[in-house]
Amino acid sequence: MRVFTLTVLLLIPCLTFAQKKSSTPDLVRYVNPMIGTAKMGHTYPGATVPFGMVQLSPDTDTIPYEVNGKYNKDVYKYCAGYQYDDNTIVGFSHTHFSGTGHSDLGDFLIAPTTGKLQLNPGTADKPESGYRSAFSHKNEAAEPAYYKVKLDDHNILAELTASNRVGMHQYTFPKSDEAHIILDLMSGIYNYDGKTTWTFVRVENDTLITGYRQTNGWARTRTVYFAMAFSKPFHQYGNKDYSEAQVYKGFWRKFDQTKNFPEFAGKKLRAYFDFKTEEGEKIKIKFALSPVSTEGALANMKAEIPHWDFEQVKREGQAAWNKELSKVVVDAGKDDLVNFYTAMYHAFLGPTTYMDVDGRYRGLDMNVHQADGFTNYTSFSLWDTYRALHPLFNILQPARNNDMIKSMLAHYDQSVHKMLPVWSHYANENWCMIGYHSVPVIADAVMKGNGNFDANRALDACVQTARTRYYDGLEYYMDMGYVPEDKNGSSVSKTLEYAYDDWCIAQMAGKLNRPDIYEEFSKRAESYKNVYDAKSGFMRPKLSDGTWKQEFDPLDTHGQGFIEGNSWNYSLYVPHDPAQMIAMMGGKTRFAQHLDSLFTMELPDKYFENTEDISREGIIGNYVHGNEPSHHMPFLYNWTDQPWKTQERTRMVLKAMYKPTVDGLGGNDDFGQMSAWYIFSALGFYPVAPGSDQYAITSPAIRSATINLENGKTFSIEAKNQSDKNVYVQKMELNGKPVNRTYLTHDEIIKGGKITFYMGSKPNKKLFAIAP
Amino acid sequence: MRVFTLTVLLLIPCLTFAQKKSSTPDLVRYVNPMIGTAKMGHTYPGATVPFGMVQLSPDTDTIPYEVNGKYNKDVYKYCAGYQYDDNTIVGFSHTHFSGTGHSDLGDFLIAPTTGKLQLNPGTADKPESGYRSAFSHKNEAAEPAYYKVKLDDHNILAELTASNRVGMHQYTFPKSDEAHIILDLMSGIYNYDGKTTWTFVRVENDTLITGYRQTNGWARTRTVYFAMAFSKPFHQYGNKDYSEAQVYKGFWRKFDQTKNFPEFAGKKLRAYFDFKTEEGEKIKIKFALSPVSTEGALANMKAEIPHWDFEQVKREGQAAWNKELSKVVVDAGKDDLVNFYTAMYHAFLGPTTYMDVDGRYRGLDMNVHQADGFTNYTSFSLWDTYRALHPLFNILQPARNNDMIKSMLAHYDQSVHKMLPVWSHYANENWCMIGYHSVPVIADAVMKGNGNFDANRALDACVQTARTRYYDGLEYYMDMGYVPEDKNGSSVSKTLEYAYDDWCIAQMAGKLNRPDIYEEFSKRAESYKNVYDAKSGFMRPKLSDGTWKQEFDPLDTHGQGFIEGNSWNYSLYVPHDPAQMIAMMGGKTRFAQHLDSLFTMELPDKYFENTEDISREGIIGNYVHGNEPSHHMPFLYNWTDQPWKTQERTRMVLKAMYKPTVDGLGGNDDFGQMSAWYIFSALGFYPVAPGSDQYAITSPAIRSATINLENGKTFSIEAKNQSDKNVYVQKMELNGKPVNRTYLTHDEIIKGGKITFYMGSKPNKKLFAIAP
Repeated sequence: MRVFTLTVLLLIPCLTFAQKKSSTPDLVRYVNPMIGTAKMGHTYPGATVPFGMVQLSPDTDTIPYEVNGKYNKDVYKYCAGYQYDDNTIVGFSHTHFSGTGHSDLGDFLIAPTTGKLQLNPGTADKPESGYRSAFSHKNEAAEPAYYKVKLDDHNILAELTASNRVGMHQYTFPKSDEAHIILDLMSGIYNYDGKTTWTFVRVENDTLITGYRQTNGWARTRTVYFAMAFSKPFHQYGNKDYSEAQVYKGFWRKFDQTKNFPEFAGKKLRAYFDFKTEEGEKIKIKFALSPVSTEGALANMKAEIPHWDFEQVKREGQAAWNKELSKVVVDAGKDDLVNFYTAMYHAFLGPTTYMDVDGRYRGLDMNVHQADGFTNYTSFSLWDTYRALHPLFNILQPARNNDMIKSMLAHYDQSVHKMLPVWSHYANENWCMIGYHSVPVIADAVMKGNGNFDANRALDACVQTARTRYYDGLEYYMDMGYVPEDKNGSSVSKTLEYAYDDWCIAQMAGKLNRPDIYEEFSKRAESYKNVYDAKSGFMRPKLSDGTWKQEFDPLDTHGQGFIEGNSWNYSLYVPHDPAQMIAMMGGKTRFAQHLDSLFTMELPDKYFENTEDISREGIIGNYVHGNEPSHHMPFLYNWTDQPWKTQERTRMVLKAMYKPTVDGLGGNDDFGQMSAWYIFSALGFYPVAPGSDQYAITSPAIRSATINLENGKTFSIEAKNQSDKNVYVQKMELNGKPVNRTYLTHDEIIKGGKITFYMGSKPNKKLFAIAP
Repeated sequence: MRVFTLTVLLLIPCLTFAQKKSSTPDLVRYVNPMIGTAKMGHTYPGATVPFGMVQLSPDTDTIPYEVNGKYNKDVYKYCAGYQYDDNTIVGFSHTHFSGTGHSDLGDFLIAPTTGKLQLNPGTADKPESGYRSAFSHKNEAAEPAYYKVKLDDHNILAELTASNRVGMHQYTFPKSDEAHIILDLMSGIYNYDGKTTWTFVRVENDTLITGYRQTNGWARTRTVYFAMAFSKPFHQYGNKDYSEAQVYKGFWRKFDQTKNFPEFAGKKLRAYFDFKTEEGEKIKIKFALSPVSTEGALANMKAEIPHWDFEQVKREGQAAWNKELSKVVVDAGKDDLVNFYTAMYHAFLGPTTYMDVDGRYRGLDMNVHQADGFTNYTSFSLWDTYRALHPLFNILQPARNNDMIKSMLAHYDQSVHKMLPVWSHYANENWCMIGYHSVPVIADAVMKGNGNFDANRALDACVQTARTRYYDGLEYYMDMGYVPEDKNGSSVSKTLEYAYDDWCIAQMAGKLNRPDIYEEFSKRAESYKNVYDAKSGFMRPKLSDGTWKQEFDPLDTHGQGFIEGNSWNYSLYVPHDPAQMIAMMGGKTRFAQHLDSLFTMELPDKYFENTEDISREGIIGNYVHGNEPSHHMPFLYNWTDQPWKTQERTRMVLKAMYKPTVDGLGGNDDFGQMSAWYIFSALGFYPVAPGSDQYAITSPAIRSATINLENGKTFSIEAKNQSDKNVYVQKMELNGKPVNRTYLTHDEIIKGGKITFYMGSKPNKKLFAIAP
């Protein structure tokens, strides 16, 4: 048995692929799914295909979110189910978020075991006390669409792969008369006692199980259906109901339902299936999901994996990854290649497919809907992903982004609030974070001319969303021009983000010739001015009587009127009008000094230690790259007379915050937003204000890159003389002609062409002297 | 306001309808839905249409089935939600079983109130402590498809009517600034803490609510969807979640969800909708159900009640009842008319429609299925209804019975056990009672040539069901010819009922020319002999070693090897071969004496006081008419030399067990079985062994009757000189020709004709001298 190790993976020699355009290059080998699995990256190492419904991945612990109504702080580490430092694996479950800062999922955990049947998972320090197993990273390998690990306690080699809607397991057993496969229907991520509101299971025959699981978690009302097929018949099976008190059993009590009884249901179930195995015998499982029904799950299985060839599924999964990864073919140093393609991998994990092969899915109203002419997606981490991920999709995945917007509009149609998604997953609005950032996603596509959705209908949805008075302080914002801190917390962040979202609405209205809406929302877009305190020079919480909140510490992230950020950071959040903001804050020079301070000052732990999404790893000075509100800030130098500092800072951030190691991410990847930041910045441009067609120029971190656009054209980037030292742009040419501005436009990219950066070790302070 | 009283209803003068064949006669006026609502009839007085999905009826109490895991004996009274002796009404819920001896349902209780909002139901002794109200029977009226009552505490007149899938409420309010309509989503029949596993509600707009409720009760996994429309917009609304600990609230905590927030979900919810009303203002509600989705419920509402005309819905509902009731037009004394048509009403309450207007329904596998060319029914109380109700349907409702069998076959197709229904409701097998009595229902239809289902496929389903080894002692029965009491309780009842069901299979196999099956099941059908103890002269529990269980009291119903019956009664249960049974038990004379003893001996309370389904009211001697195992016994005299005693006994039972009063039923109506017994017996014949084409002759209790058959023909019954004293058949003519046998055949009825009974006050002991 050959076992890949992390080391091997990272030592693959660097090759240049720019030349190899005739066939899809093998880029999968640069992806290391283990990156971000240590510390707070919140990525998972398991098997999935691009934007796939199934994320089949090991869970190293399943500690509860709450115990006796009290929050369990340690759970935060397990947002993606896996922590690199752990020594045991509980099992392999089928759904995982990538990089999120709150969590859910972990459905249908499977654990293969040998020896005495144990239905409890056991504890991390005593894995032998349950079905879980010790494991070693040296016996572990993770690739796109493939994961394997040796389960030491049971002497089982576990291999996982997946198609879009079906996870495939391959377990190589030792010789055993007591081989078990456990299906834990209670297990989950961000679990708590009572989270599983119901499970229903049928043993259809000796190789097929169907059922569903309903949970009440981050998604309040969620049902996932499954069909589970074994490659070999089990010879016996059973289950145990762990409910404390089974109040009412009715006439089912006439059966012994715990053994070889084909139908069980309840709130806390674990099932097992028993086999006798020969040495080296492989038992495979196909585990299909559906948001609609067990019938749907079975149809998904039959459509996607009609055979038992594990290698074929892996091969097709990796081919799908190569196809997506090759949308950008780069030449760079070896670490940068791993960073780049792992970022591409993480960026293409979500939003995830949320419909059966026949296009049916469960909607927000819990009714079954038909996706008519589009792929329905779910898991929109919009507070994060509107910033760079969806803009990235507008270049690399315009067709999918179009379908994502159609999915958002379907959400809107189904929403009883008549609101676009805020943070939605599995037919649920979970209301996470603030703002209504479906709007910039839609505006970015509209302004860039991307997609065939009805733009006017989409604008109406944006407007309706932005007028939902009962939503998160909006009534005050609409009436007073700001959210008063005494009425609704995190008031400054909300005011600032609403203002930007409103600008996006105005931009769309302008393009679509809807003057009333343009007027209304252009005015609302200036609301950021209402929370700027000229005296302190910071955005500052204002009370409903119009006075500033007196107690105010612009460094503190706790209860100061900001969410997951302090005023130092959030005060720079006017992405739609940096020039005006800079003027308001004292002009270019003073502003550049302010920015300098941000990157160089020290932010003591006490100012963020209770803010879960901010950790020391993600901080440079007082610049919090590990969390989103700061992501556009390094680019703001472009609006001052010192754009070369943008180049310097972004290169520095790329180095500091992205490393090709398991603990290489400076914070939660946030469903690809951190990775999208990497990809843009490494390529040399970044969308400071989605909804505008401009990208702020910075210093490329690659030697060259070719973007293979869906329209068949290519846009190439060459960074001549680029190195770790040569981070300053000396001059720039677009299609051979000099460019002396700090931005590229979307059109310039999308119609194809080439941008050439000439790099040097010292800033060319004359270049870009005139800000946009 | 005119208030019907029970007295008025019962004093309607008797009319003869036999002549009025040109138009549908008004038979609704003879139906008194209050009959059986006192004591243990377990009927409900509310509004429903024939075989309707909605049973909108008042619940006078909602006490729990279990408290702290302990059974609450008092709940048994509330199987149908209503007890006549109660003085308060909690509210009006939309689903009720009629006459069952165990229960469930009571979904979506609505209570209109005035004054201070109270979301708790309050207590029966202090109705003012909650939303419930005192009421008086003098302000109450119940008719088919119509119910009304004055809610004294709130000065509201409540009126209810229904279409098949939609309940319609009409509440006449006083002038009030605080008028409320409460929707209690926690309330239910046979409720317990935790029974409601989830509820989901959307306030779509100010007149429309949608949602669903999931329960874990007698139906283990059950979801009912609803759409609720108000005739007038509410001006505010809200809800309260009564969960003890709301462990995880997620980001929903950013909202005050308790007031004017349009989406709520949880395990214990009550909602309210507020109005301001003028004196005498009517607020109407249309409340549609669906087994599929809220979309389905809304479509049902639009299809069935597209308007707000309460009187029209009531009129159409009563017209539907008159159509069904007029399938038998009888001339009889006034009490007998009320008894007869109330029995017809009760017989046509179920099984109930279980599909949307588009034919979709949720199946046993929890997937949505399409009923292709048939109406899908649910709530099959088969241990009861195979005896006389389905045979009655084979005469009066052959089309529906055909669809019911198709529904059973769909159940079989969806069953993971590959079993036909035992006792099923709402896409659930609840496993209540014993046997596999779908079989006689199917056999009766096959043998009588009724229905267009695939008889061979149906036979296969029966065979497969009867071979399910893990079902309730079947493995022993199959291997040993009897169920050993030490292996599986109620062993004798099971052996006897399996034997009869097996005979039904053999009959079908014979007709369908399937000799292997015929042989196998003919042999199994004789298994009753294996539990007959010739020494004691009783059926008796046998142990797995082949010896009789020593402790044995043939009078006791508790733990003697019988279910809901004692050996005295169950020993007479060989419906498929009374002649052989009689021979086995010592011959005709001795058997007739045995039967005489049954009716004349005394059964002390101690022998049945712990058997819920048996009460003093339902007992004559040791004959337990109030429960089903005895129902065929009065007819067994027909197999002796004293058939006139059948005539005497059935007339006596009719008088004793069926009275036109609220406490008029001698036991649970059992979803129409008790009523079907009444109808058959009153007409003068009874199906002792469904699956045979014969009906045992007895003494008609009506003066004349015309059965309007679905084939367009009529079968008439005339009982000349019949009176309470003239209960003995002197002679009998079929189509004018003398008949001297104790049975009629199905063909004789179904091809139309007339049977004339000549009645007298003394037995004609020469008639029927030769038993069949």
